[in-house]
Amino acid sequence: MNIVVQKYGGSSLATIPRIKNVASRIIEKKLAGYSPVVVVSAMGSTTDQLVRMAYSVTDSPTKREMDMLLATGEQVSIAMLSMALNDMGHKAISFTGQQVGIHTIGYHGKSRIMDIETHKIEHALSDNNIVIVAGFQGVNEKDDITTLGRGGSDTSAVALSCVLQCPCEIYTDVDGIYGVDPKLYPPAKKLDHVTFDEMLEMASLGSGIMHGRSIELGSKYNAKLYVSSSINKTQGTYIDHKEETLKISQRKEITGLAVDAAEVLVSLSRLPDQHDIVSDLFARLANQNVNIDMISQTSPTDGLTDISFSAPKDELQVVETMFRVLKETHPSMDYTIDEDVVKLSVVGVGMRFQPGVALGLFDVLQHNHIPVKMITTSEIRISCMIPADLKEKAVIAVADHFEL
Amino acid sequence: MNIVVQKYGGSSLATIPRIKNVASRIIEKKLAGYSPVVVVSAMGSTTDQLVRMAYSVTDSPTKREMDMLLATGEQVSIAMLSMALNDMGHKAISFTGQQVGIHTIGYHGKSRIMDIETHKIEHALSDNNIVIVAGFQGVNEKDDITTLGRGGSDTSAVALSCVLQCPCEIYTDVDGIYGVDPKLYPPAKKLDHVTFDEMLEMASLGSGIMHGRSIELGSKYNAKLYVSSSINKTQGTYIDHKEETLKISQRKEITGLAVDAAEVLVSLSRLPDQHDIVSDLFARLANQNVNIDMISQTSPTDGLTDISFSAPKDELQVVETMFRVLKETHPSMDYTIDEDVVKLSVVGVGMRFQPGVALGLFDVLQHNHIPVKMITTSEIRISCMIPADLKEKAVIAVADHFEL
Repeated sequence: MNIVVQKYGGSSLATIPRIKNVASRIIEKKLAGYSPVVVVSAMGSTTDQLVRMAYSVTDSPTKREMDMLLATGEQVSIAMLSMALNDMGHKAISFTGQQVGIHTIGYHGKSRIMDIETHKIEHALSDNNIVIVAGFQGVNEKDDITTLGRGGSDTSAVALSCVLQCPCEIYTDVDGIYGVDPKLYPPAKKLDHVTFDEMLEMASLGSGIMHGRSIELGSKYNAKLYVSSSINKTQGTYIDHKEETLKISQRKEITGLAVDAAEVLVSLSRLPDQHDIVSDLFARLANQNVNIDMISQTSPTDGLTDISFSAPKDELQVVETMFRVLKETHPSMDYTIDEDVVKLSVVGVGMRFQPGVALGLFDVLQHNHIPVKMITTSEIRISCMIPADLKEKAVIAVADHFEL
Repeated sequence: MNIVVQKYGGSSLATIPRIKNVASRIIEKKLAGYSPVVVVSAMGSTTDQLVRMAYSVTDSPTKREMDMLLATGEQVSIAMLSMALNDMGHKAISFTGQQVGIHTIGYHGKSRIMDIETHKIEHALSDNNIVIVAGFQGVNEKDDITTLGRGGSDTSAVALSCVLQCPCEIYTDVDGIYGVDPKLYPPAKKLDHVTFDEMLEMASLGSGIMHGRSIELGSKYNAKLYVSSSINKTQGTYIDHKEETLKISQRKEITGLAVDAAEVLVSLSRLPDQHDIVSDLFARLANQNVNIDMISQTSPTDGLTDISFSAPKDELQVVETMFRVLKETHPSMDYTIDEDVVKLSVVGVGMRFQPGVALGLFDVLQHNHIPVKMITTSEIRISCMIPADLKEKAVIAVADHFEL
């Protein structure tokens, strides 16, 4: 059997004509000799509506019941798509996450897939059915319905393709992976191939085409992923570990550029230069789940040091509270928070083999009079914090320079 | 443990304030020392909306997928009600039909409950939870989600009360069972007690307060049923086999009156009086699931006979098609269909002990110049087909006469 997993997102299923369009595309695949297993999200903005509904009855919905509520969104989608396929003359059968046996662990609202049973799907496929599976949901050891967090349908699809040992096609409202978001940089080029490592860096930078965990999973199990449009039929982007991809990347130092406006720059000055104070601060931030990405510390003068770091905008209150407490113990200390910043990052496995990428990036920024407030690097990524009002100028300059 | 099953219908849960009202009532019961197990329907007109949605994608939705779709309605309700209860400081936990283990047999869309597991409910109750169960749904031997047909939540509630061996309270938008629909006859009296047999006859007559199967089930397992308002706190109606009820009924010959406008009167004339033709006709109607309630046949003249019967309005097309075929074989035959009729029925277990009820009924009708076009009787019911435009006059006359 030539199984293929396809995933269609909520916007691809938002209306009846779109559901029928998706059904047609699935049938084409079936007629081309494949056995499709289709993973779907909730239709359009259903999930948002359900969340609003929950908050209309309580300010703090029970997480277990929230999962019970949200899971209905995908259940509606699978039923509707299966009806459309049956109507178009092709046997189809839908399964909830619980019915398939998508077993999860962890907390409600952000569960992780531990195991997926395959016998029900395989039996339905061997009976010539197109199989439709509710994404985003599973069932825990207590038989409670769980969800995987926003974008979790990607993870459902990739996980299914891993257990079914087949390719996974992610259809969405963009037609592939671009080096730069075309909304920011219209001449952006679509990538034919991208590696899992690059996708992971991009996902963590908020380039929201695919759910981060789905990439991790795909990378771990060496899945064959393909991202393309659910509307037109242009060639999309393959995500893999392939040597071929590396060769392309070797020619090109940078694969992608991402801009993240969800962080602020926090600067602490005149903090006593004692290791335990600094480490205690970061331990407290970690305990509060405040995700610190970039950190820089100056050499101490007169026993006092300056520290800057980036923090998520929506954790600002937690950070400020912590600082007020810290200032009581260390009155010499002062802090500023700069919200008018964006983090511009370039990503590329080619960096591993090509020195001087960082230098090239700083040259471009300096040449365009864009001040860099902070820098971090990983093996395949360089991120710079720059003023928010220079975002567009920086994107164009960097994308032009690296020919994205 | 003092378990009680409560059932709240869709209109009682149609809005957020109504959900909160239901939650308050459940908490009152809990504080009074009971362990409530609450069965709910889909909120407001959700089920209708889902049905319309299905028909917007196909003219003939797959029945299995229709059940998958409709089951989401109750799943939303249980999550919302459970959230409301938790918000109000009382532990609550919701279960789908599948999670409880409500096992069904039969066809999708009209499945019957075969068995209900109780361990999950009992475990949750012993953990001090209010248990919320999705009505109307279950799971079949293939682990497919099934539904019980319109009004099936009543059946879920009664069945649960049977397996949990506890009373069952049905809360609805009327405040009990009336002898006559107060919309038809404003001075109608609410009944304190009614027997299962009477409720069954009334349910079969389209007096839609409770789902027929729920009454059958309650009768079979001798459930303790109580029907009352979900809004106010007036005394409702008990449904049981109690001797007390019989005594009340012995004093009163008629308990209830129902009017059904969903049938037409079909008259066939000059049909050859051969047993096989007539029986063949009714066999064909039965094969097409056309439910014939009343039949009358005149004595044959010249080897030809006249037959009249009632048929459901929505099966009219099937009946007419059949007659056209029949007329080809028996050209002497002719037929008329009278749609301007209603079926007026009186019901009462007291009839068993009091002769002359039929005579009283016909006297009243004749005295008010209401022609009776056809009659059927059962042990506790008399039904008359009368002209539709005399419906109100007949209801008032009969209700007055029998002091309903």
